[in-house]
Amino acid sequence: PSGFTECLREWDDLEKNYQQIQDTHRLYKQKLEEVTRLQGSCSGAISRQRKKLRELRVSLQECKDNHPTPKLNPEDVDSISEVQSLIRERGEAFSEMEAFLPQKNGLYLNLVLGNVNVTLLNKQSKFAYKDEYEKFKLVLTVILFVFSFTCRFLFSYRALDALFNFLLVWYYCTLTIRESVLINNGSRIKGWWVFHHYVSTFLSGVMLTWPEGALYQMFRNQFLTYCLYQIGFVQFLQYYYQSGCLYRLRALGEKHNMDVTVEGFQSWMWRGLTFLLPFLFFGHFWQLYNSITLFTMFQLPECKEWQVAMCGCSYLVLFMGNFLTTLGVVYQKYRN
Amino acid sequence: PSGFTECLREWDDLEKNYQQIQDTHRLYKQKLEEVTRLQGSCSGAISRQRKKLRELRVSLQECKDNHPTPKLNPEDVDSISEVQSLIRERGEAFSEMEAFLPQKNGLYLNLVLGNVNVTLLNKQSKFAYKDEYEKFKLVLTVILFVFSFTCRFLFSYRALDALFNFLLVWYYCTLTIRESVLINNGSRIKGWWVFHHYVSTFLSGVMLTWPEGALYQMFRNQFLTYCLYQIGFVQFLQYYYQSGCLYRLRALGEKHNMDVTVEGFQSWMWRGLTFLLPFLFFGHFWQLYNSITLFTMFQLPECKEWQVAMCGCSYLVLFMGNFLTTLGVVYQKYRN
Ligand SMILES: CC(C)(COP(=O)(O)OP(=O)(O)OC[C@H]1O[C@@H](n2cnc3c(N)ncnc32)[C@H](O)[C@@H]1OP(=O)(O)O)[C@@H](O)C(=O)NCCC(=O)NCCS
Ligand SMILES: CC(C)(COP(=O)(O)OP(=O)(O)OC[C@H]1O[C@@H](n2cnc3c(N)ncnc32)[C@H](O)[C@@H]1OP(=O)(O)O)[C@@H](O)C(=O)NCCC(=O)NCCS
Repeated sequence: PSGFTECLREWDDLEKNYQQIQDTHRLYKQKLEEVTRLQGSCSGAISRQRKKLRELRVSLQECKDNHPTPKLNPEDVDSISEVQSLIRERGEAFSEMEAFLPQKNGLYLNLVLGNVNVTLLNKQSKFAYKDEYEKFKLVLTVILFVFSFTCRFLFSYRALDALFNFLLVWYYCTLTIRESVLINNGSRIKGWWVFHHYVSTFLSGVMLTWPEGALYQMFRNQFLTYCLYQIGFVQFLQYYYQSGCLYRLRALGEKHNMDVTVEGFQSWMWRGLTFLLPFLFFGHFWQLYNSITLFTMFQLPECKEWQVAMCGCSYLVLFMGNFLTTLGVVYQKYRN
Repeated sequence: PSGFTECLREWDDLEKNYQQIQDTHRLYKQKLEEVTRLQGSCSGAISRQRKKLRELRVSLQECKDNHPTPKLNPEDVDSISEVQSLIRERGEAFSEMEAFLPQKNGLYLNLVLGNVNVTLLNKQSKFAYKDEYEKFKLVLTVILFVFSFTCRFLFSYRALDALFNFLLVWYYCTLTIRESVLINNGSRIKGWWVFHHYVSTFLSGVMLTWPEGALYQMFRNQFLTYCLYQIGFVQFLQYYYQSGCLYRLRALGEKHNMDVTVEGFQSWMWRGLTFLLPFLFFGHFWQLYNSITLFTMFQLPECKEWQVAMCGCSYLVLFMGNFLTTLGVVYQKYRN
């Protein structure tokens, strides 16, 4: 609009349009209230049914166990078993429903973020969130790789190392937050992988406080090379494998609900996994090696720093957890 | 249910109830989609109108500025001014509307949390969130107070100090996250108070890496006493003042929309503020004093640690920012 009359005409148009927006907004607020009410009643009803189902399961089991006394004919026993399997199915159906209902935050999210709802209420945004999480890890992997390369081969300042460790602390903290959000959204990530990031945060924090000195220099190169390998190289392979899984699962449509057509996915997954596993295990044994190195250093007479023992313990915990969990995951996949 | 037939009856009841839940859930999903659609169209329409209003404002101003040339009679000039003030009002109306629409996350939240919606969609939950934020600060204040007291007067281990600083880093990080959520929800917290928590995080991180030694011991007592005063005592007063403001504002109903009945609140606020201000300013000058102490230490010949200068700079930045912003806030309140 350039002239005065044009401006006034434009304003009139906007005025009319504004009325419309107000109407839409009013409708929106009303629907929003309805949705909130429905959310509450769905969640409430589901948790009440869940409770009753649990009680019923116990009662049915009791009926079965005390069998000879109240006398049941074989059909009755069959129908009990049938109801029992239906109860299990019902539980899964409820989980499916709950994917669209806001969930309570866990303790950690409540501490860090407070009481905001982080449940994404449709499959696309859940997928997009997971995808973003993998991309975030990838970008940080590249940055950390360059950073640790610089520290290892180019510059050797304690302050730069501190910055690197600070970045690690921040990175692991962020991962724990995002993983809590993923879990809230129904991801089946094993508890250990989350806990492992808490331990890593702690470890990086302790590395941060380790003062410059002969002992620090003794461990420095080994630590940085380990970071190059683990955070750079292995994480990259892991990204490739896990985002591959994610996209293939999505292409298959429904997740966690695989049937026969999934064979292609299964074979891809096994190929990826067998390729990945040697590198993973090598990384785990490097953690064990780090821990042994640190415990040996701890026995030196000149060792005064508490950080040495603390890091040693952390690496030991990481090794055991990672190794056992990975073995467990592989065993579980093999049995399916 | 105890007997077999009772169990079966119970199961039938549950079955019927389940059908109902399914119906509710289907209805819910449908409404949810509607709401999402309405959300999108409202947000889109508002941002389009905003853009047009901005253009219109510029055009009107041009009309006024070039006035003598296209010849406007005095009524026209009046109506231009009127439209201009209506445009301003419209902007505020849109902000009110946007409080009920999900907002895009800022850069920091996107980095830490990823793309989850953190906008709370009604006034009660916004209020509850802010209230929880204040309570969280209070609880952490108490914990940090006890902790710094322990470090100051009871035990003097570098490892315990490290734990204390680690807790500080975590606390400030958490505050930045929660404050980003508050801002996303329309809080008018000044940018500096958020930035001030980034600087504090950095400062605590640097303190964490400061190795044990003569210089550290030289600064330690002053630092811990400062923490006792600032984090323990002043934060507590601040909590009292700010949660007082919050409750009173809520009791007044609409926030940011005060009229004459607000006088009681105003006088309470001024009394609170004048009580609080001397303690605040004392804290600010303590920050200046910390910074000067550190810079003096930096000139000692035995000073090798980069942490000394870094902490000195951080305290200086904190002092200047806090002091100037507080002055600004008081001046602004005074003028209203
Ligand atoms: C062994 C491994 C490759 C199996 O991956 P997988 O096939 O995805 O395993 P699962 O089928 O059990 O995955 C279940 C869920 O957990 C997630 N997940 C598994 N391992 C994860 C990890 N290390 N970090 C984050 N998420 C992980 C999966 O993405 C999946 O999520 P979804 O339910 O949202 O789809 C994987 O666990 C892994 O890489 N572990 C090694 C990690 C390690 O040792 N790192 C070295 C220390 S830094
Ligand atoms: C000066 C002061 C008391 C004024 O508080 P106030 O009256 O609430 O100030 P405003 O009216 O500008 O507040 C606007 C918003 O910012 C919030 N806010 C103000 N100062 C804040 C702070 N330091 N931290 C967090 N939030 C703050 C208010 O709660 C309010 O939120 P709302 O919009 O959601 O209601 C307050 O800013 C303050 O305590 N500042 C000093 C902090 C300090 O110096 N600390 C020492 C360093 S550790």
